[in-house]
Amino acid sequence: MRLTPDLTPEYSDPHSYPAGVAWQDGQYIPVSQAKISVLDYGFLHSDATYDTVHVWDGAFFRLDAHIERFLAGVERLRMTLPVSVPEIREILHNCVSLSGYRRAYVEMVCTRGTARDFSRDPRAATNRFLAFAVPYGSVADDAQMKRGLHVTITNTTRIPPSSVDPRVKNYHWLDLIGGLFDAYDRGGETALLLDSDGNIAEGPGFNAFSVRDGALITPEHGVLRGITRRTVMEIGHEQGRTVREGTLTRDALRSSDEVFITSTAGGVMPVTRIDGAPVNDGAVGPVTRAIMSTYWAWHKDKRFVEDVVYPSQETKAPS
Amino acid sequence: MRLTPDLTPEYSDPHSYPAGVAWQDGQYIPVSQAKISVLDYGFLHSDATYDTVHVWDGAFFRLDAHIERFLAGVERLRMTLPVSVPEIREILHNCVSLSGYRRAYVEMVCTRGTARDFSRDPRAATNRFLAFAVPYGSVADDAQMKRGLHVTITNTTRIPPSSVDPRVKNYHWLDLIGGLFDAYDRGGETALLLDSDGNIAEGPGFNAFSVRDGALITPEHGVLRGITRRTVMEIGHEQGRTVREGTLTRDALRSSDEVFITSTAGGVMPVTRIDGAPVNDGAVGPVTRAIMSTYWAWHKDKRFVEDVVYPSQETKAPS
Repeated sequence: MRLTPDLTPEYSDPHSYPAGVAWQDGQYIPVSQAKISVLDYGFLHSDATYDTVHVWDGAFFRLDAHIERFLAGVERLRMTLPVSVPEIREILHNCVSLSGYRRAYVEMVCTRGTARDFSRDPRAATNRFLAFAVPYGSVADDAQMKRGLHVTITNTTRIPPSSVDPRVKNYHWLDLIGGLFDAYDRGGETALLLDSDGNIAEGPGFNAFSVRDGALITPEHGVLRGITRRTVMEIGHEQGRTVREGTLTRDALRSSDEVFITSTAGGVMPVTRIDGAPVNDGAVGPVTRAIMSTYWAWHKDKRFVEDVVYPSQETKAPS
Repeated sequence: MRLTPDLTPEYSDPHSYPAGVAWQDGQYIPVSQAKISVLDYGFLHSDATYDTVHVWDGAFFRLDAHIERFLAGVERLRMTLPVSVPEIREILHNCVSLSGYRRAYVEMVCTRGTARDFSRDPRAATNRFLAFAVPYGSVADDAQMKRGLHVTITNTTRIPPSSVDPRVKNYHWLDLIGGLFDAYDRGGETALLLDSDGNIAEGPGFNAFSVRDGALITPEHGVLRGITRRTVMEIGHEQGRTVREGTLTRDALRSSDEVFITSTAGGVMPVTRIDGAPVNDGAVGPVTRAIMSTYWAWHKDKRFVEDVVYPSQETKAPS
């Protein structure tokens, strides 16, 4: 005796979203309108790769490096982009330009897409590209940037390279989210996960660095090859420091002179407490400060930036 | 001198989708309309859990077991469902009823959702529920069901339980998709992945069974606790067989008397070739046939099924 309800021909979304601009299927739209089908394997199988780049004071930072990594991920997943590289550049520029944001967090995504008959064969799907620009965000808030983050090392292990290639930037975050809840439970503000050998891997959206005697050490295996991580390694070299990718044990991390994390979302962020205990004297250290300083100075360096042209600055073509 | 393009206020989706009915935010809609925001962490972090149940000849099979597992996954991810269990049952029934499908593949999903300010703290997000019914699909097509699947054992390892709890049914499929491409490259039709110890784990959406001397053996660790897997174990017991969850090596699998896989998408499916070599004599075996037969007989068994009421069968309430 059930009374079947009516079918609504058009979905009406009652939720609120941040402001921003997205591109999907040739259309620039408010980010609140940017949706993917629940049947897209980018959702149903998290079969997707992406990259994020930021815009700082009206300019992209290292856009070429982010696009290059994105293209490598798309190829490793054996996907085909429906847009060319010049089109990607144009789309990203336009999303930011239309948003008007001088500081933005910009994401480009390629999903496996859908197959018309809902085939389970990934080769049958038509891959999709989308992109969006939203306001710039950071892993650490202003207070945490000043006094340093309080990090908890969790026993959750990062998904190993034998399962998912960490060079393909991916949305498989349940290990990171589990680690985050574990960190919150234990009084931390964010989490560091271990690799399969019990050494430090990475955290939710960031790489980690240890500073000892002026040298920089960062985990080598099973981590995303972060563009900010690479930038910090280059800064280290420019500053004449020893920079080493290798194994970083929990104990080595805890007994560091300084610790910081790196992400496109926040740049270089100091860590001053690990598992409740201060790192060294618990203050943000001089090496971290020197690297932060150069990192932001490089955001004015023509080697690394390209300006966004906003509508107000445009020279209109004659009509 | 870039000319910024116009912003389109409403996104228009040019893609085609399978038919079916979905529920989102109180609305029953064509599945082509069912979309999630690109900012939903169910997409951006694959921070979601789900379950799938099938409808066979107008009746749900073991719906209670699927809902129970779904609720356990939601709790393990520390999410809060915006709908009650009776509401979930009603939504799933209505999706099928409105679709009119007598044989359907039905999925219920809980995503982390979005936070209004795009916060990275999963506790700040409002969790979402959605569901949909599409035509019934199977891992194996008709020909493969008759002659048995040709499976390749890949060297990709399934994401380990130390990273992601396999009891939480999740969308982290990049390992499974990588394994699938590896299998295709080597002439297989689907893939079996290994666990971290190099033993058989599971495949894309299915569990595996080995038959030896009439007994059933299925991998114990690092696998989804499939409802079809459980059903087959119960059938095995009812048929007086030894049923064992344990370690299944590659060699043990290859030298089985019979091999089959189990999934809500297809039920019990014979495997007759592994890595190009026949399993036993390469024919679908008698134990596999006996289990398939009981599995489908149970789809008429009142212990396990509940009928969908379709609009044409309804007794309308007086208006």
